[in-house]
Amino acid sequence: MSKVRSFWGWGYKQDELKKAEIKKLSNMLSGFVGIDGKLQDAPKVEDLKLPHPNIKLPKSLESLADNFLAQRAQHSYGRSFKDVVRGLNNSFDGAPDAVVFPKTENDVINILEFSEKKNIAVVCYGGGSSVVGGVEMDSDYKQNYSGWISLDMSYMNALSEIDTYSRSAKFQTGILGPQLETKLKKYGLTLRHFPQSFEFSSLGGWIATRAGGHFAMGPTHIDDLLESVEVITPSGKTVSRRLPASGAGPDENRLWLGSEGILGIITSAYVKVQPRPIYVAKADILFESFKEGITCLKEIAQSGLNPSNCRLLDPLEALINGVSSKNKAVLLLGFESYNNPVNFLYEEAKKICLRNKGTLASELITIRGNSESDSSNKSSAAELWKASFIKAPYIRDALVRLGLIVETFETAVTWNNFDELYENVISGVQRNISKSLKNLGWITCRITHAYQNGLAPYFSVIAKGDQGSQISQWNEIKLIANETVVKYNGTVTHHHAVGKDHREAFAKEKSSLYLDYLKAAKTYFDPQTILNPGTLIKI
Amino acid sequence: MSKVRSFWGWGYKQDELKKAEIKKLSNMLSGFVGIDGKLQDAPKVEDLKLPHPNIKLPKSLESLADNFLAQRAQHSYGRSFKDVVRGLNNSFDGAPDAVVFPKTENDVINILEFSEKKNIAVVCYGGGSSVVGGVEMDSDYKQNYSGWISLDMSYMNALSEIDTYSRSAKFQTGILGPQLETKLKKYGLTLRHFPQSFEFSSLGGWIATRAGGHFAMGPTHIDDLLESVEVITPSGKTVSRRLPASGAGPDENRLWLGSEGILGIITSAYVKVQPRPIYVAKADILFESFKEGITCLKEIAQSGLNPSNCRLLDPLEALINGVSSKNKAVLLLGFESYNNPVNFLYEEAKKICLRNKGTLASELITIRGNSESDSSNKSSAAELWKASFIKAPYIRDALVRLGLIVETFETAVTWNNFDELYENVISGVQRNISKSLKNLGWITCRITHAYQNGLAPYFSVIAKGDQGSQISQWNEIKLIANETVVKYNGTVTHHHAVGKDHREAFAKEKSSLYLDYLKAAKTYFDPQTILNPGTLIKI
Repeated sequence: MSKVRSFWGWGYKQDELKKAEIKKLSNMLSGFVGIDGKLQDAPKVEDLKLPHPNIKLPKSLESLADNFLAQRAQHSYGRSFKDVVRGLNNSFDGAPDAVVFPKTENDVINILEFSEKKNIAVVCYGGGSSVVGGVEMDSDYKQNYSGWISLDMSYMNALSEIDTYSRSAKFQTGILGPQLETKLKKYGLTLRHFPQSFEFSSLGGWIATRAGGHFAMGPTHIDDLLESVEVITPSGKTVSRRLPASGAGPDENRLWLGSEGILGIITSAYVKVQPRPIYVAKADILFESFKEGITCLKEIAQSGLNPSNCRLLDPLEALINGVSSKNKAVLLLGFESYNNPVNFLYEEAKKICLRNKGTLASELITIRGNSESDSSNKSSAAELWKASFIKAPYIRDALVRLGLIVETFETAVTWNNFDELYENVISGVQRNISKSLKNLGWITCRITHAYQNGLAPYFSVIAKGDQGSQISQWNEIKLIANETVVKYNGTVTHHHAVGKDHREAFAKEKSSLYLDYLKAAKTYFDPQTILNPGTLIKI
Repeated sequence: MSKVRSFWGWGYKQDELKKAEIKKLSNMLSGFVGIDGKLQDAPKVEDLKLPHPNIKLPKSLESLADNFLAQRAQHSYGRSFKDVVRGLNNSFDGAPDAVVFPKTENDVINILEFSEKKNIAVVCYGGGSSVVGGVEMDSDYKQNYSGWISLDMSYMNALSEIDTYSRSAKFQTGILGPQLETKLKKYGLTLRHFPQSFEFSSLGGWIATRAGGHFAMGPTHIDDLLESVEVITPSGKTVSRRLPASGAGPDENRLWLGSEGILGIITSAYVKVQPRPIYVAKADILFESFKEGITCLKEIAQSGLNPSNCRLLDPLEALINGVSSKNKAVLLLGFESYNNPVNFLYEEAKKICLRNKGTLASELITIRGNSESDSSNKSSAAELWKASFIKAPYIRDALVRLGLIVETFETAVTWNNFDELYENVISGVQRNISKSLKNLGWITCRITHAYQNGLAPYFSVIAKGDQGSQISQWNEIKLIANETVVKYNGTVTHHHAVGKDHREAFAKEKSSLYLDYLKAAKTYFDPQTILNPGTLIKI
């Protein structure tokens, strides 16, 4: 039996946590945040009440639509905390009037033409994993349209071309992470791009949101892995040339990277691929404090060694993710290569760790077969962390059902600005937890990416909310987070895109000249303003 | 005595080749291309005849101008072959009406305001090394303006801030390569960006043209070294935030990278800097043929070893540059690091070379002091090549005075498209040399950059032209080059920018939708179309 997507929560319905698992979780956390173990029931398809659809599709498009209630519900929102709460509360006022699945570029063109004619908003939907309101209709703009279509790209998921000689592959952009890697694996290749949303995010979504990927350094951002794109806009189609590099004018690919569906629909892309890694060396290093870990992380990031993984968890983050219960910060350090032993680089990095008072908790140096991951070391911190990383959104959904506020936010900042940003974010959020949440909550931090000139801190909040007020309570924290991050020279997003949720903060990060340029670009590509209204910029 | 810039040729007047050097060159080449040794005299300042300037600057701007004839002559053109011929022929019809040197951002704003009011075109001038018509006034558009200003940024050359902690430095963009490196050297740092034009190109010019730098792999493009920019446009000012990375909207820096002065004036930039390299390992490897060298180059480029240098010269290129006279292709392979020994990586790359039938001509593994380069090995092919690389434009000028056509063009292409592109470029240009140049000429090729997915071939032409027809004879070759490169899936430029000379080919490389978007962006930032008309796009 094929798996079915949850219409209210993360991923597959079959992979939701079972009652027994939730019970265990609840017991474990009761001491932490004082939850009472009461579990909100998940809504059932038969309970769904959706607004009547306002759109009548023409015959030519009707065959592409699926208006089954659960489809419309699933496509109402992304999968942020707020989205899951709304879903759990069976609150699908925001449901699309139609969910349309194009199979060809011509279908996309026809949908855009019809939508322009009928003044219908079109929101592109890849894997639906947005946590920033990227795939929903902005309620502020709803009244300006006769309805809205969720344009689900999932049928456009072909591997159209493989060029093993130049290490490049062309995919239709509706393809999800696992499908894409499965197709490349046949050729011994990988895109090596693993965002946390991997299972339920698409190549098109990665490009549109400038996804960061899982690796700490080296080419991990989709920005660096993109070779060319094909985009259909209401004003026409554009294809950027396949090139390894160019000095000819502003890079067109960079216009579409981060465009978040407001300028056009990215339909195909060539991406740079590489052989699957064979040589692996990795270790878990413990530090007395997060601060000591940061000092070491900086030295590694500026060493030129470029580890594949260099992720630092603060003590509580390490505990919650089951990586270490020793009340220490943990650095997950890893090197890998498809071509050359990495021992030498790894040993140099280890020296840096030991010199910075790190202690080695586990270590693995190996030559891997062609399997997905080494089975020899399932219990290393990195492996435990990876398992927990993939499972995290399912656990999040269970915690929400237990009445908790569980959400994350993230940024990137230059090294010189880190301390101030970090301290102000932590203290600002903690103050709010004390004041508004009876002190029943925590904020944790991990560093997900490190650069020569800066780093990417990722914050998680877990707190006991008040029944029915969780969204507004979270919004208070989120506002503090956004304002603090932007005030202290961070970017409003490094992993999660701007969407609608970060629009105000994005406006503070950017100059008004640049924002108005984005509007001018939108007016050019999307003159009737039908594409994803309210995302990135006000219109 | 401080050095004086040549108003007609490359670089400093004092560094022009002396008569005896030219004589030697002429003797050496006479067998090659049958030159007669007759040397065209360089024009003198007192012979200059420039059109009367059409612009009367207001008092507030007059003090910023230098209307000395040699200044106006120098600023008439860049330094392509065509430009040098025009200069040598004392043909400065294209001279700017004024050369203005802003000292502050306010000066830039005032110049733009005045120019908008008076309908004056403004062409930004960094180091003046453009070889694509990037710093001249397009004669097709001249009639649309009441005159044109060459906006020389050279007084805006300060190091405004140094953040050694985050390894970033802020410069005003008029700073030239040597000034910038001298300022960084005090802190033990380097930008490590060395285009051939290094001595006479500016940070602003590098950004505006997406300069490639000298290194073969790794972060060598200025695109990857830029942290943030400040730009003044006729519509206002924008500053992008200093960030190590971001996922927030399309990357603003990438809009300015490659904008070639048509959208705004880049006045300041933070760039990513790094410690000066200490560990060095390098070798010159000989191959029986260019083709064998290419096979090896590809294996190294796809090995993940990321050498700093990996430059392949064909046999004639190696001979002309004094690198090897053995009629073999030469691969200049080099690794360097500021932090870690590179021996291991180097040995792995050497294995690849030997396995591919390369033979080791010279080798150096060393730990360098803090000096600019190691003096221990001045005679290695790489060092000889570097010396000849820097001196090349001066030699070019002498060859032009001897009546030769000496010019280059370049591209980048994915591996799968290389053979066809290379063969068609070589045969197309050779056919033209046979037909129109009595077979008195050669085309050579070197590979300057290598990527996992492709490479950057750089072609040089040296031929005997007919007195008075050299420009039109070159234009014939250039047209063939442009058309062939674009037809066979290359980019119209990887090093040299689009400027005015590549505009038609750029239009073939890009979609009309993208070109019209660039026009829309220009209309937004520069509504009266005063900035560098005719560059990149038709207006």
